[in-house]
Amino acid sequence: MKSPIRPVDDEARAMVRDVMQSARFAALSLIDPDTGAPMVSRIALVEGPDRIPLSLISDLSQHSAALQKTPVCSLLIGEPGAKGDPLTYPRLSLQAEAGFVRHGDVAHARLAQAFLAKQPKAKLYIGFADFALVRFTPLGAHLNGGFGKAYVLDASDLTDTP
Amino acid sequence: MKSPIRPVDDEARAMVRDVMQSARFAALSLIDPDTGAPMVSRIALVEGPDRIPLSLISDLSQHSAALQKTPVCSLLIGEPGAKGDPLTYPRLSLQAEAGFVRHGDVAHARLAQAFLAKQPKAKLYIGFADFALVRFTPLGAHLNGGFGKAYVLDASDLTDTP
Repeated sequence: MKSPIRPVDDEARAMVRDVMQSARFAALSLIDPDTGAPMVSRIALVEGPDRIPLSLISDLSQHSAALQKTPVCSLLIGEPGAKGDPLTYPRLSLQAEAGFVRHGDVAHARLAQAFLAKQPKAKLYIGFADFALVRFTPLGAHLNGGFGKAYVLDASDLTDTP
Repeated sequence: MKSPIRPVDDEARAMVRDVMQSARFAALSLIDPDTGAPMVSRIALVEGPDRIPLSLISDLSQHSAALQKTPVCSLLIGEPGAKGDPLTYPRLSLQAEAGFVRHGDVAHARLAQAFLAKQPKAKLYIGFADFALVRFTPLGAHLNGGFGKAYVLDASDLTDTP
């Protein structure tokens, strides 16, 4: 089978930056700890400090329990526009490891501020005790920039070193 | 921990119908057969005959190879509107089993017609030898209709008996 993968170039890096900076939500894929089957949910998502994706998740959600048990997960980031074939719009399939930051943790105030700067409506519930911030440290990614534009990226293409 | 799950009612069934009938794409979550880790990609998706979700997938894609090896997967269906908090819009997290329908299979022509009726731009590539139709037979689902509106559905809530 022929490989459709292209070498990572400046066009690919620009697509990644654009997709990440525009993100307000994502699809989170993980393993259901009860069944071993894959499951996928929508989560809020913004580009956080050091370009590390940042979410706000309720402990009441099924995916929170699953992530706490198995932090390795995948995120689909990048939404199609309203016109034309949705598969011609760039999207990033990210492999990541989730880390929870809770009320009282040293990093919470700074990350909460970064989250609210991009998702101001979350101020209604970010203070609730059962809502935790979650950082998704990238392990690697597939970028699909539209038909025939596929790239494989590593962690260094995806974040800034602090 | 208190359960946020509501009993399935007519409001929930109407949300499922609306989400499915509007769908033009979805996030597909599956297990990467090489690593055992979850992965998620965007696929084209429409409501097919008998309300069974229907996609068109290239054999060159990473998710096609994974689905052929492990057909149990999950789909996130239902997109947010442009305004307000994206998490207030309904979405369906479907557990499903994928079945491939290829050129030459008895059901191909009927399903191709149903797909193109909702996704006409796919006529550019639906005839390619490496593109297969994929039916996702529902096993169950979580419906999230917005904060505090969560439902667990079974297969009978999701499809019509042929």
